[in-house]
Amino acid sequence: MPLIPDSFPIRPGTGRSPRRGDVPIRAYLFDTYGTVCDFYRPLRSALERLAAEKRFACDAGALAVEWRNAYARSTFVAAGFGMPFRPLKDIHRENLVALLAGQCPLGFTDHDIDSLVSAWNRLEPWPDTIEGLHRLQRLAIIAPLSNGNFDDMVALARHASLPWDIILGSSVARAYKPHPDIYLKSVEALCLAPAEVCMVAAHQVDLAYAAGHGMQTAFVIRRDEFGGPVKEKGAESMSAAEVEVEGDWTFVAGDFIDLAAQCGSS
Amino acid sequence: MPLIPDSFPIRPGTGRSPRRGDVPIRAYLFDTYGTVCDFYRPLRSALERLAAEKRFACDAGALAVEWRNAYARSTFVAAGFGMPFRPLKDIHRENLVALLAGQCPLGFTDHDIDSLVSAWNRLEPWPDTIEGLHRLQRLAIIAPLSNGNFDDMVALARHASLPWDIILGSSVARAYKPHPDIYLKSVEALCLAPAEVCMVAAHQVDLAYAAGHGMQTAFVIRRDEFGGPVKEKGAESMSAAEVEVEGDWTFVAGDFIDLAAQCGSS
Repeated sequence: MPLIPDSFPIRPGTGRSPRRGDVPIRAYLFDTYGTVCDFYRPLRSALERLAAEKRFACDAGALAVEWRNAYARSTFVAAGFGMPFRPLKDIHRENLVALLAGQCPLGFTDHDIDSLVSAWNRLEPWPDTIEGLHRLQRLAIIAPLSNGNFDDMVALARHASLPWDIILGSSVARAYKPHPDIYLKSVEALCLAPAEVCMVAAHQVDLAYAAGHGMQTAFVIRRDEFGGPVKEKGAESMSAAEVEVEGDWTFVAGDFIDLAAQCGSS
Repeated sequence: MPLIPDSFPIRPGTGRSPRRGDVPIRAYLFDTYGTVCDFYRPLRSALERLAAEKRFACDAGALAVEWRNAYARSTFVAAGFGMPFRPLKDIHRENLVALLAGQCPLGFTDHDIDSLVSAWNRLEPWPDTIEGLHRLQRLAIIAPLSNGNFDDMVALARHASLPWDIILGSSVARAYKPHPDIYLKSVEALCLAPAEVCMVAAHQVDLAYAAGHGMQTAFVIRRDEFGGPVKEKGAESMSAAEVEVEGDWTFVAGDFIDLAAQCGSS
């Protein structure tokens, strides 16, 4: 299956990353949901708590994955077809309401839904995240380039102690991935050239678009992103975690500490 | 003299801050040049170094104040008359070139000018700044609401170890003070109401506009902002540091630690 469907209106562009080492990296920009933080376990726990409280049976892990994939689809389509920018939390809310419809005989209150939506602001960093970010921050500027809005990113950074220099991404561009603006306006905000900026993500599609704008790219493998078991050795599972390298990325790293080491962290 | 000239097209608005204590403060937004950091001594030093190197005589302190006031005038006029948004560093550069014209028989290179302009990104925090920001950050979100652009604010935060949660201000609004957007879009970025946000500044004009949008206001006295001696007891001097309370602000504080204490920091 191609990384990007042929019919999708936004193509990755024809730019190329510089060759590794040719251009010093002045900033690392991070995909956040899945790359910096684990969304699977925190969302699963929040759904499990609700199910216990409301006494309905569900596969909370599968629901967490469905909810995340619904959001990714919604924002991807919004970007691709030029739909007006609206808050990510509204998108999460709509998708969640649709997902839970009919699941619980007792129904759900606004408070139930709000509480679940806010779980996106209480995700957990991966074990290497904080140390890796601090190491990378000694080398260059670090910032999220996430679909999360300004307020989401502030709340998550405070919860997870993410030491960002600045918050970039969807709110700077008023666009979601893979709209060109989310990449280009985030780079422009730092007064840097795309080649001086490295996009870090656990998702190869994100990197394909970043590379198309001439950014450097770092693919970080997050085996547990969807709670596992992962897709390995040809076996399919509920997981879509990407563990095989499909593109020609500037860096491929096992985690952020590995990435920092490859980038010269001592 | 009125705080705002009668002929200036942008009026402060007719909103009112809530009464002290009526609305919990969710975020503190800071004027930066003069309020968070001392610009006078770092700019004076940079000008002194250049004068020594190029062997021309000047009053570096007076030049620093003139350069700062030229920037404040340029951005105020740009906001008031709806001029297109352009980088702050370009404004600094133009004003500096005009200010130095004819000062030095040897002339100036682009490198000389760039180096001076970049001194704005190497300002020093006031002695209470870092401790005060950390105390306020335990109470609420903290962010600059400065005329400094995204890249300026990142560089300054890294230089001065300013622990911002997020960078707001001119780049979010693509407007300079006192354009309504710089206040309103910064507040909106946090999904808060103006009454939940406190503008912190050593400049009463800034607070007049913030109050007009319904924000809470904290006037912090920075006696040394313009290098002193300050305007006191009716005596005029080169300084425009504001040491007397002219408006009806939510808080009046001697420094950030005092402000934090007044806001409930223990």
